[in-house]
Amino acid sequence: MSDNHARRRAALRDLLRSADLDALLVTELRNIRYLTGFTGSQAALLVRADGEPGAEDGTVFCTDGRYDTQSAAQVPDLERVIDRPSELVLARRLGAEPARHRRTGFESGHVTVDALDALTEAAAGVQLVRAPGLVERLRQVKDADEVEALRAACAAADRALDDLIQQGGLRPGRTELQVARELEARMLDHGAAGPSFDTIVAAGPHSAVPHHRPTGAELAEGDFVKMDFGALVDGYHSDMTRTVVLGEPADWQRELYELVRSAQAAGREAVRAGAEAREVDGAARAVIEAAGHGEHFVHGLGHGVGLEIHEAPALSQRAGGTIHPGMAVTVEPGVYLPERGGVRIEDTLVVRESTPELLTLTTKELLAV
Amino acid sequence: MSDNHARRRAALRDLLRSADLDALLVTELRNIRYLTGFTGSQAALLVRADGEPGAEDGTVFCTDGRYDTQSAAQVPDLERVIDRPSELVLARRLGAEPARHRRTGFESGHVTVDALDALTEAAAGVQLVRAPGLVERLRQVKDADEVEALRAACAAADRALDDLIQQGGLRPGRTELQVARELEARMLDHGAAGPSFDTIVAAGPHSAVPHHRPTGAELAEGDFVKMDFGALVDGYHSDMTRTVVLGEPADWQRELYELVRSAQAAGREAVRAGAEAREVDGAARAVIEAAGHGEHFVHGLGHGVGLEIHEAPALSQRAGGTIHPGMAVTVEPGVYLPERGGVRIEDTLVVRESTPELLTLTTKELLAV
Repeated sequence: MSDNHARRRAALRDLLRSADLDALLVTELRNIRYLTGFTGSQAALLVRADGEPGAEDGTVFCTDGRYDTQSAAQVPDLERVIDRPSELVLARRLGAEPARHRRTGFESGHVTVDALDALTEAAAGVQLVRAPGLVERLRQVKDADEVEALRAACAAADRALDDLIQQGGLRPGRTELQVARELEARMLDHGAAGPSFDTIVAAGPHSAVPHHRPTGAELAEGDFVKMDFGALVDGYHSDMTRTVVLGEPADWQRELYELVRSAQAAGREAVRAGAEAREVDGAARAVIEAAGHGEHFVHGLGHGVGLEIHEAPALSQRAGGTIHPGMAVTVEPGVYLPERGGVRIEDTLVVRESTPELLTLTTKELLAV
Repeated sequence: MSDNHARRRAALRDLLRSADLDALLVTELRNIRYLTGFTGSQAALLVRADGEPGAEDGTVFCTDGRYDTQSAAQVPDLERVIDRPSELVLARRLGAEPARHRRTGFESGHVTVDALDALTEAAAGVQLVRAPGLVERLRQVKDADEVEALRAACAAADRALDDLIQQGGLRPGRTELQVARELEARMLDHGAAGPSFDTIVAAGPHSAVPHHRPTGAELAEGDFVKMDFGALVDGYHSDMTRTVVLGEPADWQRELYELVRSAQAAGREAVRAGAEAREVDGAARAVIEAAGHGEHFVHGLGHGVGLEIHEAPALSQRAGGTIHPGMAVTVEPGVYLPERGGVRIEDTLVVRESTPELLTLTTKELLAV
């Protein structure tokens, strides 16, 4: 992976030069992981615009004694400092060479008001400049290794659901919590380090609650069972929702399901290089609105996924921005009829020039289990 | 729980009046949970110094449409606003009645530099004042319901380890990852919602790495096996470390173990109402230093636990502050001999007037399994 990390740092240096920054102090841990491969819980990174490609490339990594061995293995190619609090240690490095770090960006979307005071004091003589979202901008477009991790995460979720269904795990009398725990355990069996967020299992009327938390409520014949879950593999998050019916679906259930399925297909079709994020949402939303259910689709269509379960780009009515090849996004329309039931269908996919690559491969036919 | 939440808000109003604040805008989710019982992932809370005890007490809670139903159940006693982004919605409420909110605190240890800009714009006419750590200060001292949740979390971890050992789960040939996953699964069996942090299982030389992440390495006869893990129950985190030996312990292992056990006992003894946090660390550290291993105890003695796995107070060489009854802390000295092996022994306990109450009840005798 070190080649990838070096490439990512080179891309960041380009952004720094465009923003007339001499350096960036990176303190957000996922951004540090993205740029170095380090997976510990305390670190900071100094990336310098004047770095040259090659060993060290002018970057300084800092973590504390707990992670000395781990960081030696994960970050072999960079200058390493072992001390804490790491962001202040690197801020003092900035202050020690003010001419080299004249204008240094900090992650103003992550650094707190109190933390900026401490950085400013430590980096005396250096101008700390707000530089929000630079690494996040790079992270939107996934490289091949990232797509591979997402693919493995999606496969773990697909296989867990397949196991659950094949082995009769969805049946009247089981509780939402039991189903949620079984899905999570089976994802572990298929290589996940854990669930990628709190698993949602919502049966019957609960399926009408978009973000229902599983309870001791028992699944019953005729229920919609909505399952929204994902796996974490190598730090990357998958996200999938499927809604099934226990037993023979009623007519209203078939109708509702087909509506959401059409909307989801329309949303996926709209995910193409060059599309506006807002248009993608609109393509799915139009299908639901035309059926008179616009008010029952109460959230955005989707979001980016990667090192975070929710990251840029957002696909919603208010979203700005354009879709680019390599972005990984979810498409997840839902229609929720209060007190009655709801359907959501969600895939994770990667934007390509034309048709996106589907990473969650579980069927979207209405399953009667 | 609503009585508790009202009591906590009343205590916060006292702090606000002492700090000459008219209100506090609470945006940190665990602080919101502590003050209201809300467990969702997006919310803000406005607590006003002029609130009177009783229904609503002048507090306004805000979340978004995903949590309408959930918040109605969890926060029945407060004025609820359903809109997002919730912190900006409440900031506009501040601006709508500037005389009532003249000096309003914000959580400067959590609010980012960019977020403060948006709050300041939304709360025009109101002075936003840094007010770090007010709710965290209250959270240090646990009430009876909180101790009950911690007790349940510690019991889940105790039982999981007991099951693991009784059923032969610690044996040569199993991998660190298998042991970690089994501990986590058994905690779920005993009522945990999940692990309270990434489980550490470190065998043989890996036990010398304080925060080793479990790997596919196999446990072998004669290994130290260090397990640092905890359970999450009702939002509260337990934290325990035990180190066992597979088979008959060698002399150096017995010696190292007994050293750490003595240091841990000394640390627990020092945890008393009125003690200085730094003295508690010192009591355990002195034992290890006297044995010539001071340099091999590379971290602080312990930390507060509660709604976060690491919270105030810190028990370390650099810590300030005094220990008060009701604080919940860990005591976890460790001695790590590079390339060879290490021992850490950790309990979670609650400070009482004299002897602290031990919540993690697994034996600290050296177990040869």
